Amino acid sequence: MYRKQTLSKIKTIEKKLRRFLREDQIADHENQRLLYARDMMSGNLLDIKAGVTPSLPDLICWPETTEEVSKIIKLAFQERIPVTPYGAGSGVSGGTIPLQAGIILDLKRMNKIEKIEEHEGRFLVTAQCGIIGMHLEEQLQHKDVTLGHFPSSILCATLGGYLACRSAGQLSSKYGKIEDMVEDVEAVLPNGDIIGFGEEIPQYPHIKAKDLLVGTEGCLGIITRTRVKAWPLPQETLWRGLEFKKLSDAFDAMREILQLGLRPAVMRLYDEVDTFLLTHGYDKKPKWWKKYLPELPFKKFVGKKVHHLLFSNASLFQNTFETLSPKVILILGLEGNPQLTKVQLKTILDLSKKRSVRDLGAKPGLHWLKHRYSVSYKMPGVFLDDAFVDTIEVASTWDRLPSLYQNIRHALMPQALVLAHFSHAYVDGCSIYFTILSRTGKPDKDRDRYKELWQKAMEEALQVGATISHHHGIGLLKAKFLPQELASGMEWYRNLKHTLDPKNIMNPGKMGL
Amino acid sequence: MYRKQTLSKIKTIEKKLRRFLREDQIADHENQRLLYARDMMSGNLLDIKAGVTPSLPDLICWPETTEEVSKIIKLAFQERIPVTPYGAGSGVSGGTIPLQAGIILDLKRMNKIEKIEEHEGRFLVTAQCGIIGMHLEEQLQHKDVTLGHFPSSILCATLGGYLACRSAGQLSSKYGKIEDMVEDVEAVLPNGDIIGFGEEIPQYPHIKAKDLLVGTEGCLGIITRTRVKAWPLPQETLWRGLEFKKLSDAFDAMREILQLGLRPAVMRLYDEVDTFLLTHGYDKKPKWWKKYLPELPFKKFVGKKVHHLLFSNASLFQNTFETLSPKVILILGLEGNPQLTKVQLKTILDLSKKRSVRDLGAKPGLHWLKHRYSVSYKMPGVFLDDAFVDTIEVASTWDRLPSLYQNIRHALMPQALVLAHFSHAYVDGCSIYFTILSRTGKPDKDRDRYKELWQKAMEEALQVGATISHHHGIGLLKAKFLPQELASGMEWYRNLKHTLDPKNIMNPGKMGL
Repeated sequence: MYRKQTLSKIKTIEKKLRRFLREDQIADHENQRLLYARDMMSGNLLDIKAGVTPSLPDLICWPETTEEVSKIIKLAFQERIPVTPYGAGSGVSGGTIPLQAGIILDLKRMNKIEKIEEHEGRFLVTAQCGIIGMHLEEQLQHKDVTLGHFPSSILCATLGGYLACRSAGQLSSKYGKIEDMVEDVEAVLPNGDIIGFGEEIPQYPHIKAKDLLVGTEGCLGIITRTRVKAWPLPQETLWRGLEFKKLSDAFDAMREILQLGLRPAVMRLYDEVDTFLLTHGYDKKPKWWKKYLPELPFKKFVGKKVHHLLFSNASLFQNTFETLSPKVILILGLEGNPQLTKVQLKTILDLSKKRSVRDLGAKPGLHWLKHRYSVSYKMPGVFLDDAFVDTIEVASTWDRLPSLYQNIRHALMPQALVLAHFSHAYVDGCSIYFTILSRTGKPDKDRDRYKELWQKAMEEALQVGATISHHHGIGLLKAKFLPQELASGMEWYRNLKHTLDPKNIMNPGKMGL
Repeated sequence: MYRKQTLSKIKTIEKKLRRFLREDQIADHENQRLLYARDMMSGNLLDIKAGVTPSLPDLICWPETTEEVSKIIKLAFQERIPVTPYGAGSGVSGGTIPLQAGIILDLKRMNKIEKIEEHEGRFLVTAQCGIIGMHLEEQLQHKDVTLGHFPSSILCATLGGYLACRSAGQLSSKYGKIEDMVEDVEAVLPNGDIIGFGEEIPQYPHIKAKDLLVGTEGCLGIITRTRVKAWPLPQETLWRGLEFKKLSDAFDAMREILQLGLRPAVMRLYDEVDTFLLTHGYDKKPKWWKKYLPELPFKKFVGKKVHHLLFSNASLFQNTFETLSPKVILILGLEGNPQLTKVQLKTILDLSKKRSVRDLGAKPGLHWLKHRYSVSYKMPGVFLDDAFVDTIEVASTWDRLPSLYQNIRHALMPQALVLAHFSHAYVDGCSIYFTILSRTGKPDKDRDRYKELWQKAMEEALQVGATISHHHGIGLLKAKFLPQELASGMEWYRNLKHTLDPKNIMNPGKMGL
C-alpha cells in the first residue's frame, strides 16, 4: 500500500510546478521532507523512538491563492501523484501523514481574514483556511468579536484543520462545534476544479459543499476559504469549581444543567485521578495529600523513577488514587449578562445541593483558564521518561455514558493509567476525553502496547454504540474502526470518494478510504 | 392537467381494494367524495362561493396499518391512479386537494401511541402518524411529558400533517419546529415499498428517510409512523405583555433576547393593527378608544356593514389605526425553573428599558393562552360577510425582516387590510404571520383579488430573499413560486420526484412537482 513515487514522475511535476511557484513556495530537501513526515499523533513518536523510518513526502508546496492550489492539484491529478493537505500539523490521528509520499500542500500562507460582516447582532467572518486559530481569534477579539471556538490546539491548528476533522472548542457547550459555525466553504476538488461559495459540486448538486467536505480530512477535496458565524464578545465570565463526592452525581448534575436550558460556556468534569492532577496544579498541598504522604514533594513524584513505578503498576496506583481521593471536580464558566450568569450559577448550586456538592469558588476555573493551551503544542514530557501518553475522545448519549466510561477504563487499566474528563456536554449526550499513560520499558514493545490499547478502546466504544471520535477526527489512527461505526454509510462514503477522486490522489489511506 | 380517472379503472381498483379493506374502510359515495374535495385553504371557499365545482376524489380509503397503506399504494402504482394522503384536512395551502381525483388516503385511524421511552431526562415517542395533535399531547401530558409542539391547528391536524409540511408550534422559539423534533420515520414509497425505522431508501442510501420525506407533503411517499423527541412538562410558565412605542424597537428587543441566549417558549409580537385587535380581546375599553369613538360598541364595529366599509377602504382604516394607536405588544411566556424565569424576565425588562417599554403584566399573555386555538379549526366569520381572509407566513433573517414586512404591506394594503404578528423568532431570524382581509363585493372578483394578493406577496418575499413558507407548506397555493426560491435546488427536487415516483401518482400537482 505504501507506494513511493518514481523519481522521474516527481521530477516532471516539480519542473511543471516551478513554472508558477516561486523558489520559496516549493521544497524537496530531505530536511524539509522529514519535517512534514509526521503530525502530533503519539504513534509517530513511538515509531521514531523504535527506529521505524517514516514515509517522507517528495515535495512540499506553499500555495498562496486558491488558484495556485487548483493548479497544483490539476497537475497532481494528471500525474496521479498523492496530495496531502497540511495546516499546522497539530492533528493527533495521523491525518496529515503522507502515507504514499507525493506532495504536501501546506496552506499556512493562506492566512487572510477577508471580511467581517455584522448582521443584526451576529457576525459572519470570511477567511482563508490556512490562518492559525489564535491569530484568527485575536484579530476578531480586536473588533470585540469572537468565533467562540477555543480548542486546546488553538496555538498550533488552522481554521482549515478545524473544518477537516470537525474540531470542538473548550466552549462547545455554548457555541457548538466548528460544523455548527460554518456557513459556507470554497474548496478545490481532487480534479482541481474550484467550487466557490454557494456553488454546487456537479456530482452532488443537492448536497451543500460544506456538508460534503467538512469532516472528511481532505480525502474528498481541500477547503481553501470559509465563511463562519461569529458572536459579540461576552461581557464577562463567571467561574466556579464544584466538588462532588461521586462521579455519577456529577454526570447527572451536568445533564440536568443542560436539560434545564442552561448553556455554561465551559463545563469540564474531571474524574478522580484527573481531579487529583488538576487540584495539584493550583492547590500545592491538598489535605489528604499532607495526611498520607507528607514528605514527598510533587516534583519528585512525577519524576522519571515514579513514572516508571507508576506506569508499570498502573491499576494499583489507579485504585489507590480512587480510594484515597474519590472526589471529582466540575469546572463551570458562565458567560454573558452578569445578572443572568449569577442566577444561573445559583440555580446550578441549588440543584446540586441534593448531591452534597462543595463550592470551591472561582479558583479551579481560573487555574484551568490559565493553563488551558499548555498541552497541545508540544509532546508531553513522559515520552522523555521512556513512557508514552495519548488521548482518546469518544462520545455517546447520556444513557450510554457510564458504561462507555467504565468499559474503556476496565479494558485499558491493566496496562495503563487512565484519566478522563468530560469537557463537551450537550442536552442529549457528552464526550469523554481519556488520557492514557503506559510503559513497557522497550520502545518496540511500547508500539505494540499502544496499538493494543487503541484496539481495546475502540472495540469497547463500538460495543457500547458510542462514536469513536468526537473531535480529533479519524485520520490513520481510527481508520480501521470507522467502517463498523458507519455501517452501510461506509459504502456511501467509498462511493463519494470514488466519484470525486477516481485516481485516489487526495490524502490516500485516511479515514478507511 | 386535471385528468379524471376513467370509471372502469376505478371500478377495477375498487374491487381489488375491497378484497382486503372492510366496508367501513373504503367509500365512493358522492357525499363523502365531496367532503374530501378541499382543505382549509381560503381559495377553496372562494371557489365554492363563486360556483366553481371542486375536483372530487374517486375513492376514500381508511387504512389501519402500514401494510394496508402499502397494499393500497402498490395497487395504485400498478393502475397509475393518483393517491392523495390526508390527515385532518387542516392545511391552508391546498396540499390535500385531489387535483387529479383518484384515491384519498385518510390516515386518521392510524392514531396509536406505540411507545414512550425515557432516556436520561429526554423522551422518545413512537406513534402512528394519523393521531390528532391534541390527542397526542394530552396522552403525553398525562405522563408529565410534552412534545412542545402547539400549532394553532393542534385540534384539527395530525402528527403526519405536522411532518408533511414542517409545522411550527407556538412554542417554537424554545422547542424548535417539528423537523427539529423528529428522530426517525417509517414510510411507504410511491411504489408501495415500506421503509422501516432506520432503514435506507434504496435510491438514496446516504440520505436519512426523515431528511428526504419530512416537508415533502406526501409527494415522495407517505410517512406512516414516526419517532419524535419529547420533554418533561415544565414546572411553570411566567407570562408577560410588554408594550413598545415602535415596532422596530420591539423587533430589536426580540432579537436581543434571543441573542442573549434566552429562550422564551412564547414570543409573540403584534404589529399596530393586530395589537389593536388583541387588546380588544381582553381590554374592552382601551383609553384612546373611549376618547376617540366613545359611542361605538365593539360588536357593531366588527359587524357586517363595518366589514364592508372597512375592507373597501382598507388602507385608509389601516393608516387611521396606526396613527391613533401606534403601540405594539410583545407577549412573552417563560417556561421552566421559577427562579430562572423570574430573572430572565427581569433581564428582558432591563434591556427593554432603553426602549421605553410598558409592562402590561400577565394579562395579555393569559388572554392569548385562552384563545390560542380558537382560529384554525373553523373558517373565519368574515366569509359570511362577503369578504375573505387569509394568512401568509414568510420568514427571513433579522436584517431583511423590516423590508420584508414593509414591502409586503405596501404591496397589499391598497387592496387589503393587513395585520401581522411575529410569533416564531430565532437567533438568526424570524417569521412574519400576515393576516389579510379584503373584499371586492363580487364572489368571482374576490377570487381574482385573492390570487392577485398572493402573487404580490410572494413576489415581494422572493424579492427580499425571504422564504415563502415558514410552516404552512407549499401545497397548491405556493407551488408556482417554489422554483424561484429553490433555484437550482428545484431541479434536484424534480429528479427526486422522478426517481421515486416515475408514474407521478403521489399527490400529483403539488409543490411544483
